[in-house]
Amino acid sequence: SRFEYVKQYERIDRLLPETYIVIRIDGKGFHKFTKKHEFEKPNDLRCLSLMNAAARVVMSEFTDIVLAYGDSDEYSFIWSKSTELYERRENKLVSHVCSLFTSAFVFNWPRYFDMPLLSLPSFDGRAVLYPNISVLRDYLNWRQVDCHINNLYNTTFWALIQKGGLTNTKAEEYLKGTVSSQKHEILFSQFHINYNNELEIYKKGSIWVREPEENESAPSKHEKYSTKQKRKMGLRLLHVSIIDNQFWDSRPYLNILLN
Amino acid sequence: SRFEYVKQYERIDRLLPETYIVIRIDGKGFHKFTKKHEFEKPNDLRCLSLMNAAARVVMSEFTDIVLAYGDSDEYSFIWSKSTELYERRENKLVSHVCSLFTSAFVFNWPRYFDMPLLSLPSFDGRAVLYPNISVLRDYLNWRQVDCHINNLYNTTFWALIQKGGLTNTKAEEYLKGTVSSQKHEILFSQFHINYNNELEIYKKGSIWVREPEENESAPSKHEKYSTKQKRKMGLRLLHVSIIDNQFWDSRPYLNILLN
Amino acid sequence: SRFEYVKQYERIDRLLPETYIVIRIDGKGFHKFTKKHEFEKPNDLRCLSLMNAAARVVMSEFTDIVLAYGDSDEYSFIWSKSTELYERRENKLVSHVCSLFTSAFVFNWPRYFDMPLLSLPSFDGRAVLYPNISVLRDYLNWRQVDCHINNLYNTTFWALIQKGGLTNTKAEEYLKGTVSSQKHEILFSQFHINYNNELEIYKKGSIWVREPEENESAPSKHEKYSTKQKRKMGLRLLHVSIIDNQFWDSRPYLNILLN
Amino acid sequence: SRFEYVKQYERIDRLLPETYIVIRIDGKGFHKFTKKHEFEKPNDLRCLSLMNAAARVVMSEFTDIVLAYGDSDEYSFIWSKSTELYERRENKLVSHVCSLFTSAFVFNWPRYFDMPLLSLPSFDGRAVLYPNISVLRDYLNWRQVDCHINNLYNTTFWALIQKGGLTNTKAEEYLKGTVSSQKHEILFSQFHINYNNELEIYKKGSIWVREPEENESAPSKHEKYSTKQKRKMGLRLLHVSIIDNQFWDSRPYLNILLN
Ligand SMILES: Nc1nc2c(ncn2[C@H]2C[C@H](O)[C@@H](COP(=O)(O)OP(=O)(O)OP(=O)(O)O)O2)c(=O)[nH]1
Ligand SMILES: Nc1nc2c(ncn2[C@H]2C[C@H](O)[C@@H](COP(=O)(O)OP(=O)(O)OP(=O)(O)O)O2)c(=O)[nH]1
Ligand SMILES: Nc1nc2c(ncn2[C@H]2C[C@H](O)[C@@H](COP(=O)(O)OP(=O)(O)OP(=O)(O)O)O2)c(=O)[nH]1
Ligand SMILES: Nc1nc2c(ncn2[C@H]2C[C@H](O)[C@@H](COP(=O)(O)OP(=O)(O)OP(=O)(O)O)O2)c(=O)[nH]1
Ligand SMILES: O=P(O)(O)OP(=O)(O)OP(=O)(O)O
Ligand SMILES: O=P(O)(O)OP(=O)(O)OP(=O)(O)O
Ligand SMILES: O=P(O)(O)OP(=O)(O)OP(=O)(O)O
Ligand SMILES: O=P(O)(O)OP(=O)(O)OP(=O)(O)O
Ligand SMILES: [Mg+2]
Ligand SMILES: [Mg+2]
Ligand SMILES: [Mg+2]
Ligand SMILES: [Mg+2]
Ligand SMILES: [Mg+2]
Ligand SMILES: [Mg+2]
Ligand SMILES: [Mg+2]
Ligand SMILES: [Mg+2]
Ligand SMILES: [Mg+2]
Ligand SMILES: [Mg+2]
Ligand SMILES: [Mg+2]
Ligand SMILES: [Mg+2]
Repeated sequence: SRFEYVKQYERIDRLLPETYIVIRIDGKGFHKFTKKHEFEKPNDLRCLSLMNAAARVVMSEFTDIVLAYGDSDEYSFIWSKSTELYERRENKLVSHVCSLFTSAFVFNWPRYFDMPLLSLPSFDGRAVLYPNISVLRDYLNWRQVDCHINNLYNTTFWALIQKGGLTNTKAEEYLKGTVSSQKHEILFSQFHINYNNELEIYKKGSIWVREPEENESAPSKHEKYSTKQKRKMGLRLLHVSIIDNQFWDSRPYLNILLN
Repeated sequence: SRFEYVKQYERIDRLLPETYIVIRIDGKGFHKFTKKHEFEKPNDLRCLSLMNAAARVVMSEFTDIVLAYGDSDEYSFIWSKSTELYERRENKLVSHVCSLFTSAFVFNWPRYFDMPLLSLPSFDGRAVLYPNISVLRDYLNWRQVDCHINNLYNTTFWALIQKGGLTNTKAEEYLKGTVSSQKHEILFSQFHINYNNELEIYKKGSIWVREPEENESAPSKHEKYSTKQKRKMGLRLLHVSIIDNQFWDSRPYLNILLN
Repeated sequence: SRFEYVKQYERIDRLLPETYIVIRIDGKGFHKFTKKHEFEKPNDLRCLSLMNAAARVVMSEFTDIVLAYGDSDEYSFIWSKSTELYERRENKLVSHVCSLFTSAFVFNWPRYFDMPLLSLPSFDGRAVLYPNISVLRDYLNWRQVDCHINNLYNTTFWALIQKGGLTNTKAEEYLKGTVSSQKHEILFSQFHINYNNELEIYKKGSIWVREPEENESAPSKHEKYSTKQKRKMGLRLLHVSIIDNQFWDSRPYLNILLN
Repeated sequence: SRFEYVKQYERIDRLLPETYIVIRIDGKGFHKFTKKHEFEKPNDLRCLSLMNAAARVVMSEFTDIVLAYGDSDEYSFIWSKSTELYERRENKLVSHVCSLFTSAFVFNWPRYFDMPLLSLPSFDGRAVLYPNISVLRDYLNWRQVDCHINNLYNTTFWALIQKGGLTNTKAEEYLKGTVSSQKHEILFSQFHINYNNELEIYKKGSIWVREPEENESAPSKHEKYSTKQKRKMGLRLLHVSIIDNQFWDSRPYLNILLN
């Protein structure tokens, strides 16, 4: 039609080639959403499990996602730097990932919660580019350190309230300016909680990685796994340090997948 | 933490101010999705109603959306050119709209379909900028003309198959090169279908508009409706020509909302 | 060659259609450059004339530039919103304008200055988009008001130094916090300078406009001037208010050129 | 002033950090420009020398440029991936490089040409990002191979015309479809020209590299040269293969500068 010219106003948003794409989604207003649905504090295992289930759906759909890291109301999906899905169009990648995650979250809600949905959950999404593996790893480190910091704070905060009988305000004041070791100390001396014994999923967050089958021979250097091979790979959920070299050294195939 | 520097790799994606933002979402692989869920052909009223319900949720959430147009597996949301939501960040706007629409679609599915979801629906999204009202109207005209062309084709195509007993291939061949009037003629002479009597929702698609309350006095020139006023406005669903001046002339407040 | 793939790393940087493009260039480090070449303070007519000559070259080269505004070490070029030069590629437009301006500046230097160039002048450039005529006019107003504010300040500042015998620091202190009327007063009472009698080129800056020939009939509404007609138009240099409606009302053809 | 809000329409165009920036400039309409100024064919040494002189000025100004490659009417400037000049703003970098190059070209023209400038030379510029050293090297390879291909073609083409007496059209036809070895053969058998004996500057183009002083100790791993050290480095002009590993292996400090 004579109106078709308006299509040309669309901007071409191809992301720089050979660069790692990270798509991070984060729950909108989950402060309110978690309250309304009476989430356990500071961590609700049902929610974390639902988040992980939704992330699994996304990983299964997009074979060019190599691994994913999630905690709280967020999830980061790390793409192979050579992905050409949607010609690397930013809007397409971000919106589709975010939409599929949301779809899986809502659909699977009843499998994890008895309470029905009282309001609609939604997520925002963004793409960030990282040009080399070193800064990509720092990205993942950033998220995992953030998880740790928040969790230590929240664990102590809610212990002070739930077990110590403090008000929110008092607990906040109490923790103001305390460093990591002091929070450990508060937990231990006042509430007999050894933070190190807290669940790993709380302390480390969740990592989805693809895993080649045992008998699968890795492609030789400079070669890649085929899409078919990637589809056949298993998906494993971990709650370990992604900061330690150990994580990467013991999974050399990750570098092949990321390239 | 010392990893926080990676945050600086995020690109600032503020959309040009004082320019109409259109966010269009479109079902991913709905060719397959509609088959799997045995949608009626060429139009499934349940799906159109569900799409409209999901669009309503989006309109309710974002008061800076003035109107929305949908047909088939897509919906376009037209924002006030002066919106400053999320500082006009493209990724935020696109992903949140797309996610909320998906959330509402999945959540409300059982209200419209007896069959449970057999696969997860998802949508892609994009933002397009239009610098003036004239080209913005051409955008809407484009979508509505597209709806009309597709619907006339599909209606004739499926009549040939369902009532005329043709195979898909035969029907396609039969229609190749035919113009609009010839399709009308085929429908009428062979199947006694007067295309003009088809449901308006099929022929025109769906339009959500905000509507001021009867007694609401419009703001005087250069003034705007307050967010409170916008939230109190009703939402009306229409299946009319958005191309005719009549649509715009009878709703002068739309220009105030769009500005 | 097998290396050609690297070409695909170029980003497509088409500017939004039907939107006014402003390209502003500004002298790099002219604080130092003007000192080294002993420019007269606060305004050196030779430099302003050279800037205007260079801008004229740019206007002559690009017929889709409708008007240009310059003062101090900067110049803004206002393009027709429908220009399709270089497919509206930002890098191309900015770099070519900036390069041609620089070329003309260096080439014509000896026509305006006796002193040879002691260091190489250069300019930075940028493109800014304005979606409607009202904000485009505000852009021009912004530059002209800026010219006025700076010129009034500089005129008073240098009078205090050159005629009042103050040091730079003293003059700065003296002017701190003074408003416009106080500067007028200082000039008048202390130095018998009526600011209103200063040269218009200092107070208003410089405007290049295209001008149709007397007997040229303007194209009727919705029509445009042909490239040939634009090339035949004269170029006129003005030092008047671009803020007053009078400027625009007396040149209705500007709107045709800008569209 | 109340017009200052228009400043906010400027887009933030920061280039991705830790990524190699290449700025390539190219003469506008040099086909015509070289004709008008009666350049020697196919290579005019005066022009190449002038281009190299202008590139030297750019290298001297911006210490974060590590090396530059030029041939014909173009020059590519390769920046350290960690440069933070102008906060990596694309418009700033491209326009300033392009403007300074132009300035130097015009200013130095009389040092290389007897004929005065009959028209104004200008250049366009663009920025391209490369995420790793391998693709960056492929970029440089691409330009040098391009130089070789064009030069072999042009040398044969102009031999056929100037020495063989063919018309332009005939020469073009004659060369259609010939491969590299055939052009070598034509040159040798018909004109006794051994292509390998042509000037290296024609065959390889020109490379500017920074060079540490002899006694300068390279910074140890992960360390960088200081700006002061970079400013003290010499600039050397080469006409060698940039494709061979030899170029890079014999200059390990280049990697330090590029990082
Ligand atoms: N009780 C509880 N709250 C949680 C859990 N996971 C996340 N949350 C809450 C804590 C925070 O208030 C919120 C996540 O923080 P955000 O910075 O993402 O803020 P929020 O989602 O409210 O706003 P946003 O739309 O992302 O800007 O979600 C959980 O397992 N249990
Ligand atoms: N039977 C039936 N099919 C519908 C209805 N609405 C949409 N569809 C189907 C027809 C098309 O195959 C498809 C929409 O076309 P698209 O161009 O959006 O293609 P699709 O979603 O398959 O791929 P995409 O991921 O958007 O590229 O959805 C409906 O009401 N009934
Ligand atoms: N004496 C004298 N100075 C002038 C004249 N025109 C411009 N200038 C000087 C005054 C300012 O120091 C400078 C222009 O200010 P800018 O803000 O553009 O700063 P500058 O070019 O130094 O730095 P930049 O590279 O643009 O950030 O040029 C003139 O006619 N006479
Ligand atoms: N005779 C002669 N011509 C040269 C020399 N160096 C470059 N040229 C000419 C040959 C080409 O026509 C032209 C460079 O080709 P380009 O692809 O850059 O085209 P041109 O600059 O004409 O157009 P453009 O504005 O870059 O699209 O410059 C030289 O040393 N001698
Ligand atoms: O959402 P936050 O608070 O974790 O921080 P952010 O993601 O950097 O902020 P924004 O969502 O506004 O980009
Ligand atoms: O999705 P289509 O087929 O309607 O066409 P498009 O939206 O222009 O294509 P794309 O989704 O690839 O932008
Ligand atoms: O150059 P200035 O100081 O007039 O201000 P600006 O142009 O807004 O700053 P920048 O050149 O850094 O964009
Ligand atoms: O300028 P050319 O012909 O070498 O090729 P290009 O640079 O890829 O084309 P453009 O200047 O249009 O980007
Ligand atoms: Mg956030
Ligand atoms: Mg959140
Ligand atoms: Mg969060
Ligand atoms: Mg599509
Ligand atoms: Mg679809
Ligand atoms: Mg569709
Ligand atoms: Mg500036
Ligand atoms: Mg300046
Ligand atoms: Mg300035
Ligand atoms: Mg080119
Ligand atoms: Mg050229
Ligand atoms: Mg060239």
